[in-house]
Amino acid sequence: MRHFDLEALSNLDKLYRINLINSCSGFKSANLIASKNKNGISNVAIFSSVIHLGSDPALLAFITRPTTVSRNTYENILETGYYTINHVFEDIIEDAHHCSAKYDASVSEFNQTDLKETYRPNCAIPFVKDAPVQILMKFKEEHHLKINNTIMVIGEIIGLYVNDELIENDGFINLSAANVIAINGLDGYTVPKMNTRLPYQRPKKVVGFGKINQTVA
Amino acid sequence: MRHFDLEALSNLDKLYRINLINSCSGFKSANLIASKNKNGISNVAIFSSVIHLGSDPALLAFITRPTTVSRNTYENILETGYYTINHVFEDIIEDAHHCSAKYDASVSEFNQTDLKETYRPNCAIPFVKDAPVQILMKFKEEHHLKINNTIMVIGEIIGLYVNDELIENDGFINLSAANVIAINGLDGYTVPKMNTRLPYQRPKKVVGFGKINQTVA
Repeated sequence: MRHFDLEALSNLDKLYRINLINSCSGFKSANLIASKNKNGISNVAIFSSVIHLGSDPALLAFITRPTTVSRNTYENILETGYYTINHVFEDIIEDAHHCSAKYDASVSEFNQTDLKETYRPNCAIPFVKDAPVQILMKFKEEHHLKINNTIMVIGEIIGLYVNDELIENDGFINLSAANVIAINGLDGYTVPKMNTRLPYQRPKKVVGFGKINQTVA
Repeated sequence: MRHFDLEALSNLDKLYRINLINSCSGFKSANLIASKNKNGISNVAIFSSVIHLGSDPALLAFITRPTTVSRNTYENILETGYYTINHVFEDIIEDAHHCSAKYDASVSEFNQTDLKETYRPNCAIPFVKDAPVQILMKFKEEHHLKINNTIMVIGEIIGLYVNDELIENDGFINLSAANVIAINGLDGYTVPKMNTRLPYQRPKKVVGFGKINQTVA
Protein backbone atom coordinates (compact mmCIF):
# COMPACT_ATOMS: atom_id res chain seq x y z
CA MET A 1 0.00 0.00 0.00
CA ARG A 2 1.12 3.54 -0.57
CA HIS A 3 1.97 5.12 2.80
CA PHE A 4 1.78 8.82 3.59
CA ASP A 5 3.13 9.69 7.02
CA LEU A 6 2.75 13.12 8.60
CA GLU A 7 5.86 14.43 6.87
CA ALA A 8 4.84 13.07 3.48
CA LEU A 9 1.38 14.62 3.87
CA SER A 10 2.82 18.02 4.76
CA ASN A 11 5.16 17.95 1.76
CA LEU A 12 2.44 17.21 -0.80
CA ASP A 13 1.50 19.70 -3.48
CA LYS A 14 -1.50 21.64 -2.14
CA LEU A 15 -4.04 20.52 -4.75
CA TYR A 16 -2.84 16.90 -4.57
CA ARG A 17 -3.28 16.99 -0.81
CA ILE A 18 -6.77 18.48 -1.07
CA ASN A 19 -7.85 15.75 -3.50
CA LEU A 20 -6.23 12.99 -1.42
CA ILE A 21 -7.62 14.01 1.96
CA ASN A 22 -11.07 14.90 0.65
CA SER A 23 -11.42 11.45 -0.91
CA CYS A 24 -9.89 9.39 1.91
CA SER A 25 -12.82 9.31 4.34
CA GLY A 26 -15.21 7.27 2.17
CA PHE A 27 -18.34 8.08 0.19
CA LYS A 28 -20.24 11.19 1.25
CA SER A 29 -23.79 12.42 0.96
CA ALA A 30 -24.62 14.98 -1.74
CA ASN A 31 -26.99 17.64 -0.44
CA LEU A 32 -28.14 21.00 -1.70
CA ILE A 33 -28.74 23.35 1.21
CA ALA A 34 -31.15 26.13 0.25
CA SER A 35 -31.63 29.30 2.26
CA LYS A 36 -32.72 32.90 1.93
CA ASN A 37 -31.23 36.12 3.26
CA LYS A 38 -33.12 39.00 4.88
CA ASN A 39 -33.30 40.75 1.50
CA GLY A 40 -35.18 37.79 0.05
CA ILE A 41 -32.34 36.52 -2.13
CA SER A 42 -32.23 32.73 -2.36
CA ASN A 43 -29.07 30.71 -2.09
CA VAL A 44 -28.36 27.09 -2.82
CA ALA A 45 -25.00 25.42 -2.14
CA ILE A 46 -23.72 21.87 -2.36
CA PHE A 47 -22.50 20.12 0.80
CA SER A 48 -21.00 16.68 1.41
CA SER A 49 -20.75 16.92 5.20
CA VAL A 50 -24.36 16.40 6.32
CA ILE A 51 -24.51 13.75 9.05
CA HIS A 52 -27.14 12.13 11.22
CA LEU A 53 -26.92 13.16 14.89
CA GLY A 54 -30.00 11.50 16.29
CA SER A 55 -33.55 10.35 15.60
CA ASP A 56 -35.43 11.71 18.61
CA PRO A 57 -35.22 14.65 18.38
CA ALA A 58 -34.43 14.29 14.67
CA LEU A 59 -31.17 16.17 14.26
CA LEU A 60 -28.78 16.63 11.35
CA ALA A 61 -25.48 18.51 11.35
CA PHE A 62 -23.16 19.86 8.68
CA ILE A 63 -19.78 21.55 8.57
CA THR A 64 -19.16 24.99 7.09
CA ARG A 65 -16.15 27.23 6.85
CA PRO A 66 -16.72 30.94 7.42
CA THR A 67 -14.30 31.91 4.70
CA THR A 68 -15.49 29.81 1.78
CA VAL A 69 -18.31 29.56 -0.72
CA SER A 70 -20.66 28.15 1.88
CA ARG A 71 -20.48 31.38 3.89
CA ASN A 72 -23.74 32.66 2.36
CA THR A 73 -25.57 29.56 3.58
CA TYR A 74 -24.30 30.02 7.11
CA GLU A 75 -25.13 33.73 7.23
CA ASN A 76 -28.62 33.13 5.85
CA ILE A 77 -29.28 30.43 8.45
CA LEU A 78 -28.29 32.80 11.24
CA GLU A 79 -30.52 35.54 9.74
CA THR A 80 -33.70 33.49 9.26
CA GLY A 81 -33.23 30.47 11.53
CA TYR A 82 -34.34 28.04 8.80
CA TYR A 83 -32.94 26.17 5.80
CA THR A 84 -33.72 23.16 3.66
CA ILE A 85 -31.65 20.08 2.83
CA ASN A 86 -32.38 18.55 -0.58
CA HIS A 87 -30.83 15.45 -2.11
CA VAL A 88 -28.86 15.60 -5.32
CA PHE A 89 -30.13 13.04 -7.84
CA GLU A 90 -28.80 11.88 -11.17
CA ASP A 91 -30.59 14.41 -13.39
CA ILE A 92 -29.17 17.46 -11.62
CA ILE A 93 -25.55 16.45 -10.96
CA GLU A 94 -24.02 19.12 -13.20
CA ASP A 95 -26.14 21.98 -11.90
CA ALA A 96 -25.61 20.83 -8.31
CA HIS A 97 -21.86 20.73 -8.86
CA HIS A 98 -21.97 24.24 -10.34
CA CYS A 99 -23.34 25.48 -7.00
CA SER A 100 -19.77 25.06 -5.70
CA ALA A 101 -18.78 28.15 -7.73
CA LYS A 102 -18.15 31.26 -5.65
CA TYR A 103 -21.02 33.68 -6.23
CA ASP A 104 -21.60 36.95 -4.43
CA ALA A 105 -24.47 36.90 -1.88
CA SER A 106 -26.49 39.15 -4.23
CA VAL A 107 -26.71 36.32 -6.78
CA SER A 108 -29.05 33.35 -6.45
CA GLU A 109 -27.64 30.10 -7.80
CA PHE A 110 -31.22 29.30 -8.80
CA ASN A 111 -30.79 32.01 -11.47
CA GLN A 112 -27.45 30.64 -12.64
CA THR A 113 -28.50 27.02 -13.14
CA ASP A 114 -31.55 25.04 -14.21
CA LEU A 115 -32.25 24.21 -10.57
CA LYS A 116 -35.73 25.45 -9.68
CA GLU A 117 -36.81 26.69 -6.27
CA THR A 118 -40.17 25.62 -4.99
CA TYR A 119 -42.18 26.85 -1.99
CA ARG A 120 -44.60 25.30 0.44
CA PRO A 121 -47.43 26.91 2.45
CA ASN A 122 -46.34 29.06 5.41
CA CYS A 123 -42.66 28.73 4.57
CA ALA A 124 -40.49 31.46 3.05
CA ILE A 125 -37.48 29.20 2.59
CA PRO A 126 -37.05 27.54 -0.83
CA PHE A 127 -36.83 23.82 -1.50
CA VAL A 128 -35.10 22.37 -4.56
CA LYS A 129 -37.84 21.30 -6.97
CA ASP A 130 -37.99 17.59 -7.84
CA ALA A 131 -35.43 16.53 -5.24
CA PRO A 132 -36.68 13.11 -4.05
CA VAL A 133 -36.01 13.99 -0.39
CA GLN A 134 -36.55 17.54 0.87
CA ILE A 135 -36.07 18.45 4.51
CA LEU A 136 -37.10 21.64 6.31
CA MET A 137 -34.60 22.38 9.07
CA LYS A 138 -34.76 24.68 12.08
CA PHE A 139 -31.40 25.96 13.30
CA LYS A 140 -30.66 24.77 16.84
CA GLU A 141 -27.03 25.44 17.69
CA GLU A 142 -23.54 25.88 16.32
CA HIS A 143 -20.16 24.69 17.52
CA HIS A 144 -17.01 26.55 16.52
CA LEU A 145 -14.20 24.07 15.98
CA LYS A 146 -11.16 26.15 16.76
CA ILE A 147 -8.80 23.43 15.61
CA ASN A 148 -9.30 24.54 11.99
CA ASN A 149 -11.79 27.40 12.15
CA THR A 150 -14.80 25.43 10.95
CA ILE A 151 -18.34 25.50 12.29
CA MET A 152 -20.70 22.63 12.92
CA VAL A 153 -24.31 23.73 12.36
CA ILE A 154 -26.95 21.59 14.07
CA GLY A 155 -30.60 21.72 13.04
CA GLU A 156 -33.78 19.87 13.81
CA ILE A 157 -35.93 18.27 11.11
CA ILE A 158 -39.29 20.03 11.34
CA GLY A 159 -40.64 18.90 7.96
CA LEU A 160 -39.66 15.83 5.96
CA TYR A 161 -40.88 15.35 2.37
CA VAL A 162 -40.11 12.06 0.64
CA ASN A 163 -41.28 10.64 -2.68
CA ASP A 164 -43.91 8.09 -1.66
CA GLU A 165 -42.48 5.15 -3.55
CA LEU A 166 -39.14 5.35 -1.76
CA ILE A 167 -40.51 4.58 1.69
CA GLU A 168 -40.50 0.90 2.64
CA ASN A 169 -42.89 -0.63 5.17
CA ASP A 170 -40.52 -0.17 8.11
CA GLY A 171 -39.74 3.49 7.38
CA PHE A 172 -36.52 2.86 5.43
CA ILE A 173 -36.03 5.36 2.58
CA ASN A 174 -34.57 3.55 -0.45
CA LEU A 175 -32.30 6.28 -1.80
CA SER A 176 -31.08 4.31 -4.78
CA ALA A 177 -34.65 3.92 -6.05
CA ALA A 178 -34.56 7.69 -6.69
CA ASN A 179 -31.06 7.73 -8.20
CA VAL A 180 -29.75 9.74 -5.26
CA ILE A 181 -26.05 10.62 -5.61
CA ALA A 182 -23.04 9.96 -3.42
CA ILE A 183 -19.79 11.97 -3.64
CA ASN A 184 -16.21 10.69 -3.78
CA GLY A 185 -13.81 13.47 -2.84
CA LEU A 186 -14.52 16.95 -4.19
CA ASP A 187 -15.76 16.15 -7.66
CA GLY A 188 -16.49 12.43 -8.09
CA TYR A 189 -20.17 11.55 -8.45
CA THR A 190 -21.75 8.10 -8.22
CA VAL A 191 -25.31 6.74 -8.45
CA PRO A 192 -25.25 3.90 -5.89
CA LYS A 193 -27.51 0.91 -6.47
CA MET A 194 -28.83 -0.89 -3.39
CA ASN A 195 -27.06 -4.15 -2.81
CA THR A 196 -28.58 -5.57 0.35
CA ARG A 197 -30.22 -4.82 3.67
CA LEU A 198 -28.89 -6.86 6.55
CA PRO A 199 -30.75 -7.87 9.73
CA TYR A 200 -30.24 -6.40 13.18
CA GLN A 201 -27.17 -7.99 14.78
CA ARG A 202 -26.99 -9.64 18.19
CA PRO A 203 -23.78 -10.93 19.79
CA LYS A 204 -22.63 -14.43 18.88
CA LYS A 205 -21.56 -16.87 21.58
CA VAL A 206 -18.14 -15.92 22.92
CA VAL A 207 -15.64 -18.74 23.36
CA GLY A 208 -12.12 -18.58 24.69
CA PHE A 209 -11.95 -14.91 25.47
CA GLY A 210 -13.69 -12.63 27.89
CA LYS A 211 -16.62 -13.63 30.04
CA ILE A 212 -17.52 -16.90 28.38
CA ASN A 213 -21.17 -17.11 27.35
CA GLN A 214 -22.15 -14.00 29.24
CA THR A 215 -22.68 -11.96 26.10
CA VAL A 216 -24.90 -14.48 24.36
CA ALA A 217 -28.20 -12.89 23.32
CA MET B 1 -44.65 13.60 -1.73
CA ARG B 2 -45.25 12.07 1.67
CA HIS B 3 -45.01 14.80 4.32
CA PHE B 4 -44.03 14.27 7.94
CA ASP B 5 -44.38 17.39 10.06
CA LEU B 6 -43.07 17.64 13.62
CA GLU B 7 -46.25 16.13 15.05
CA ALA B 8 -46.28 13.26 12.55
CA LEU B 9 -42.63 12.54 13.32
CA SER B 10 -43.22 12.47 17.05
CA ASN B 11 -46.17 10.09 16.66
CA LEU B 12 -44.28 7.50 14.62
CA ASP B 13 -43.59 4.03 15.91
CA LYS B 14 -40.09 4.13 17.40
CA LEU B 15 -38.45 1.65 15.00
CA TYR B 16 -40.15 3.25 11.97
CA ARG B 17 -38.85 6.62 13.06
CA ILE B 18 -35.31 5.30 13.55
CA ASN B 19 -35.29 3.78 10.06
CA LEU B 20 -36.82 6.89 8.48
CA ILE B 21 -34.54 9.46 10.09
CA ASN B 22 -31.39 7.36 9.72
CA SER B 23 -32.00 7.01 5.99
CA CYS B 24 -33.15 10.56 5.25
CA SER B 25 -29.80 12.37 5.19
CA GLY B 26 -28.35 10.64 2.12
CA PHE B 27 -25.68 8.00 1.57
CA LYS B 28 -23.10 7.63 4.32
CA SER B 29 -19.54 6.36 4.55
CA ALA B 30 -18.94 2.86 5.94
CA ASN B 31 -15.94 2.78 8.24
CA LEU B 32 -14.56 0.31 10.73
CA ILE B 33 -12.93 2.12 13.62
CA ALA B 34 -10.38 -0.09 15.35
CA SER B 35 -8.91 0.63 18.76
CA LYS B 36 -7.35 -1.07 21.77
CA ASN B 37 -7.92 -0.66 25.48
CA LYS B 38 -5.27 -0.44 28.19
CA ASN B 39 -5.59 -4.18 28.79
CA GLY B 40 -4.63 -4.85 25.18
CA ILE B 41 -8.07 -5.97 24.03
CA SER B 42 -8.84 -4.92 20.47
CA ASN B 43 -12.14 -3.45 19.42
CA VAL B 44 -13.61 -2.79 16.01
CA ALA B 45 -16.93 -1.05 15.43
CA ILE B 46 -18.81 0.16 12.36
CA PHE B 47 -19.53 3.87 11.95
CA SER B 48 -21.40 5.83 9.29
CA SER B 49 -20.71 9.31 10.66
CA VAL B 50 -17.09 9.92 9.68
CA ILE B 51 -16.75 13.31 7.98
CA HIS B 52 -13.98 15.41 6.49
CA LEU B 53 -13.20 18.49 8.57
CA GLY B 54 -10.20 19.86 6.72
CA SER B 55 -7.15 19.00 4.62
CA ASP B 56 -4.40 21.02 6.33
CA PRO B 57 -4.16 19.85 9.04
CA ALA B 58 -5.84 16.67 7.80
CA LEU B 59 -8.76 16.21 10.19
CA LEU B 60 -11.65 13.76 10.33
CA ALA B 61 -14.50 13.68 12.84
CA PHE B 62 -17.11 11.15 13.85
CA ILE B 63 -20.10 11.04 16.17
CA THR B 64 -20.47 8.64 19.07
CA ARG B 65 -23.03 8.16 21.78
CA PRO B 66 -21.76 7.36 25.28
CA THR B 67 -24.56 4.91 25.92
CA THR B 68 -24.43 2.71 22.83
CA VAL B 69 -22.35 0.01 21.22
CA SER B 70 -19.71 2.50 20.12
CA ARG B 71 -18.88 3.32 23.75
CA ASN B 72 -15.90 0.93 23.75
CA THR B 73 -14.39 2.77 20.81
CA TYR B 74 -14.71 6.10 22.57
CA GLU B 75 -13.26 4.84 25.84
CA ASN B 76 -10.34 3.18 24.07
CA ILE B 77 -9.54 6.38 22.17
CA LEU B 78 -9.45 8.33 25.42
CA GLU B 79 -7.22 5.67 27.00
CA THR B 80 -4.62 5.37 24.23
CA GLY B 81 -5.01 8.56 22.19
CA TYR B 82 -5.01 6.67 18.88
CA TYR B 83 -7.35 4.75 16.60
CA THR B 84 -7.61 3.61 12.99
CA ILE B 85 -10.30 4.22 10.39
CA ASN B 86 -10.64 1.44 7.80
CA HIS B 87 -13.00 1.31 4.83
CA VAL B 88 -15.63 -1.38 4.50
CA PHE B 89 -15.41 -3.06 1.09
CA GLU B 90 -17.66 -5.55 -0.65
CA ASP B 91 -16.02 -8.76 0.63
CA ILE B 92 -16.47 -7.90 4.32
CA ILE B 93 -19.96 -6.35 4.41
CA GLU B 94 -21.50 -9.05 6.60
CA ASP B 95 -18.68 -9.14 9.14
CA ALA B 96 -18.55 -5.35 9.23
CA HIS B 97 -22.29 -5.21 9.85
CA HIS B 98 -21.95 -7.77 12.65
CA CYS B 99 -19.66 -5.31 14.47
CA SER B 100 -22.84 -3.36 15.28
CA ALA B 101 -23.76 -6.11 17.78
CA LYS B 102 -23.38 -5.11 21.42
CA TYR B 103 -20.37 -6.93 22.84
CA ASP B 104 -18.83 -6.46 26.25
CA ALA B 105 -15.51 -4.58 26.30
CA SER B 106 -13.74 -7.81 27.23
CA VAL B 107 -14.58 -9.28 23.80
CA SER B 108 -12.76 -8.38 20.59
CA GLU B 109 -14.96 -8.29 17.51
CA PHE B 110 -11.88 -9.57 15.65
CA ASN B 111 -12.47 -12.88 17.50
CA GLN B 112 -16.18 -12.94 16.67
CA THR B 113 -15.89 -12.37 12.90
CA ASP B 114 -13.53 -13.22 10.04
CA LEU B 115 -12.15 -9.69 10.16
CA LYS B 116 -8.41 -9.84 10.76
CA GLU B 117 -6.39 -7.29 12.66
CA THR B 118 -3.02 -6.29 11.26
CA TYR B 119 -0.22 -4.27 12.81
CA ARG B 120 2.42 -1.89 11.51
CA PRO B 121 5.85 -1.05 12.95
CA ASN B 122 5.87 1.17 16.05
CA CYS B 123 2.09 1.12 16.34
CA ALA B 124 0.11 -0.85 18.95
CA ILE B 125 -3.26 -0.01 17.41
CA PRO B 126 -4.75 -2.56 14.98
CA PHE B 127 -5.72 -1.90 11.38
CA VAL B 128 -8.34 -3.98 9.55
CA LYS B 129 -6.45 -6.31 7.21
CA ASP B 130 -7.13 -5.90 3.47
CA ALA B 131 -9.16 -2.70 3.86
CA PRO B 132 -8.24 -0.67 0.74
CA VAL B 133 -7.89 2.54 2.77
CA GLN B 134 -6.49 2.43 6.32
CA ILE B 135 -5.96 5.59 8.33
CA LEU B 136 -4.01 6.02 11.57
CA MET B 137 -5.63 8.75 13.64
CA LYS B 138 -4.41 10.74 16.61
CA PHE B 139 -7.13 12.01 18.94
CA LYS B 140 -7.21 15.82 19.03
CA GLU B 141 -10.40 17.00 20.75
CA GLU B 142 -13.99 16.16 21.57
CA HIS B 143 -17.15 18.24 21.61
CA HIS B 144 -20.07 17.22 23.76
CA LEU B 145 -23.30 18.00 21.96
CA LYS B 146 -25.68 18.56 24.83
CA ILE B 147 -28.66 18.79 22.52
CA ASN B 148 -28.84 14.97 22.38
CA ASN B 149 -25.95 13.75 24.50
CA THR B 150 -23.68 12.78 21.62
CA ILE B 151 -19.96 13.41 21.26
CA MET B 152 -18.02 14.55 18.23
CA VAL B 153 -14.52 13.07 18.25
CA ILE B 154 -11.94 14.93 16.15
CA GLY B 155 -8.66 13.32 15.12
CA GLU B 156 -5.73 14.13 12.88
CA ILE B 157 -4.57 11.79 10.12
CA ILE B 158 -1.01 10.85 11.03
CA GLY B 159 -0.69 7.87 8.68
CA LEU B 160 -2.61 7.20 5.47
CA TYR B 161 -2.36 3.82 3.72
CA VAL B 162 -4.05 3.44 0.33
CA ASN B 163 -3.93 0.64 -2.22
CA ASP B 164 -1.61 2.01 -4.93
CA GLU B 165 -3.90 1.46 -7.86
CA LEU B 166 -6.67 3.62 -6.36
CA ILE B 167 -4.67 6.85 -6.40
CA GLU B 168 -5.07 8.95 -9.53
CA ASN B 169 -2.46 11.41 -10.78
CA ASP B 170 -3.97 14.38 -8.95
CA GLY B 171 -4.26 12.62 -5.58
CA PHE B 172 -7.91 11.56 -5.98
CA ILE B 173 -8.63 8.16 -4.38
CA ASN B 174 -11.03 6.20 -6.60
CA LEU B 175 -13.07 4.42 -3.92
CA SER B 176 -15.26 2.51 -6.34
CA ALA B 177 -12.21 0.86 -7.91
CA ALA B 178 -11.80 -0.97 -4.59
CA ASN B 179 -15.52 -1.81 -4.16
CA VAL B 180 -15.73 0.49 -1.13
CA ILE B 181 -19.20 0.49 0.44
CA ALA B 182 -21.71 3.25 1.17
CA ILE B 183 -24.51 2.92 3.71
CA ASN B 184 -28.19 3.80 3.34
CA GLY B 185 -29.83 4.15 6.74
CA LEU B 186 -28.87 1.63 9.40
CA ASP B 187 -28.63 -1.52 7.34
CA GLY B 188 -28.65 -0.81 3.59
CA TYR B 189 -25.35 -1.48 1.84
CA THR B 190 -24.35 -0.38 -1.67
CA VAL B 191 -21.22 -0.74 -3.81
CA PRO B 192 -21.19 2.58 -5.70
CA LYS B 193 -19.65 2.68 -9.16
CA MET B 194 -17.96 5.90 -10.24
CA ASN B 195 -20.06 7.83 -12.68
CA THR B 196 -18.12 10.99 -13.43
CA ARG B 197 -15.64 13.54 -12.14
CA LEU B 198 -16.60 17.13 -12.90
CA PRO B 199 -14.24 20.10 -13.35
CA TYR B 200 -13.69 22.92 -10.85
CA GLN B 201 -16.53 25.43 -11.15
CA ARG B 202 -16.18 29.18 -11.64
CA PRO B 203 -19.11 31.63 -11.61
CA LYS B 204 -21.00 32.13 -14.87
CA LYS B 205 -21.80 35.63 -16.09
CA VAL B 206 -24.62 37.13 -14.02
CA VAL B 207 -27.41 38.88 -15.94
CA GLY B 208 -30.51 40.58 -14.61
CA PHE B 209 -29.96 40.10 -10.89
CA GLY B 210 -27.43 41.35 -8.41
CA LYS B 211 -24.31 43.24 -9.33
CA ILE B 212 -24.36 42.62 -13.04
CA ASN B 213 -21.13 41.16 -14.38
CA GLN B 214 -19.24 41.79 -11.17
CA THR B 215 -18.99 38.13 -10.31
CA VAL B 216 -17.69 37.00 -13.69
CA ALA B 217 -14.48 35.02 -13.28
